[in-house]
Amino acid sequence: MSGKNFTSVEQELLKEIMLHRRDVRGNKFLKKEVPDEIIEKILLAASLAPSVGFSQPWEFVIVRDNNTKNLIADSFELENKKAEGMFFDEKRAAYAKLKLEGIHETPINIAVFYKPSVKPVLGQTTMKEAGEYSVVCAVQNMWLMARALNIGMGWVSIVDPEAVKEILKSPPENKLIAYLCIGYVKEFLDGPELEKLNWETRKLVSAVVYQNSYPKEK
Amino acid sequence: MSGKNFTSVEQELLKEIMLHRRDVRGNKFLKKEVPDEIIEKILLAASLAPSVGFSQPWEFVIVRDNNTKNLIADSFELENKKAEGMFFDEKRAAYAKLKLEGIHETPINIAVFYKPSVKPVLGQTTMKEAGEYSVVCAVQNMWLMARALNIGMGWVSIVDPEAVKEILKSPPENKLIAYLCIGYVKEFLDGPELEKLNWETRKLVSAVVYQNSYPKEK
Repeated sequence: MSGKNFTSVEQELLKEIMLHRRDVRGNKFLKKEVPDEIIEKILLAASLAPSVGFSQPWEFVIVRDNNTKNLIADSFELENKKAEGMFFDEKRAAYAKLKLEGIHETPINIAVFYKPSVKPVLGQTTMKEAGEYSVVCAVQNMWLMARALNIGMGWVSIVDPEAVKEILKSPPENKLIAYLCIGYVKEFLDGPELEKLNWETRKLVSAVVYQNSYPKEK
Repeated sequence: MSGKNFTSVEQELLKEIMLHRRDVRGNKFLKKEVPDEIIEKILLAASLAPSVGFSQPWEFVIVRDNNTKNLIADSFELENKKAEGMFFDEKRAAYAKLKLEGIHETPINIAVFYKPSVKPVLGQTTMKEAGEYSVVCAVQNMWLMARALNIGMGWVSIVDPEAVKEILKSPPENKLIAYLCIGYVKEFLDGPELEKLNWETRKLVSAVVYQNSYPKEK
């Protein structure tokens, strides 16, 4: 085989990074500036993601400005209040106690957008979502690289994408894929917070794998 | 900071894996079986992906059966013929020459599905796509782990998702996110094939990064 050959030690290390990656929220971040070179490394990782037809359809808005963060946080508050009402009894009480974003607690927020192409994109002719999915691959690369750099990252999905677009003066054709909060942390938990709190349990891999097709009776 | 601390050597290694990851098509695969333990490592990597509300909304159908592959390949042929007609002149001629899948050339195909939750999911109350995006994060973890294992993976997005669902007897509520071809390779190219063929050029990271907001005139 020609091309770089990775060793079993290197495979193990990649697994370690994946295992220790966390979704980090406001209660875990430190008030400490993140150097530009760290952000550049995270954005470089994004640019190394796969993209349908090599279209690289990603755009990034780096938010440090407090007024902008205030407006984003307002959208979070509004959406989070609505979300709380969708859960009942103990779940609602548990939900209300969770800290689900770190907009102000992190020095760096990054809004990640999908920019649709004006011409046909190879590989995106049938499954249009492949463009957005490329941007998600970039976000996952950012997350893993941030963790390897011992930097926390949280993905805030409880914001109104149209509100965020307006706040950030996004071109109308762009789509908000992710709103990320990035900063140094006090600690990385040794497992997902929602697992530790028994909000959800971990699925066995074997429970979600089928051979050749789904069983007929499903 | 408490939690595992990664070193600069380890950060560099992660970058190397990202740099050397390729989308591999049928002309690069070897006719060689992939041991089950390799597939298990790739699926374990998927299970370590972030997921909205720790919902882990992924399901995997491992396809080895030739008749099933024939049916999937038929859907590819149909969609690829349509796709070719969307390009013109030299692009169409170039498109026709590309090998864009490895359904039969790989021993293992994996169809990756998003399984929607029947109850509200934390973090998915405003942006419904967060569920699908979790599955895409799992696919990117699989891709990186496959590369670290020196195994090639290609993402076939030129198939009709409804046809694939029918072939694989998917529950109607599931959504096909990715159809993956996995196997040993002759070589990993030192850059994306579509970049080498001048189909698309690489974007500078600085060209897709904005500070605090998009410029007003955009």
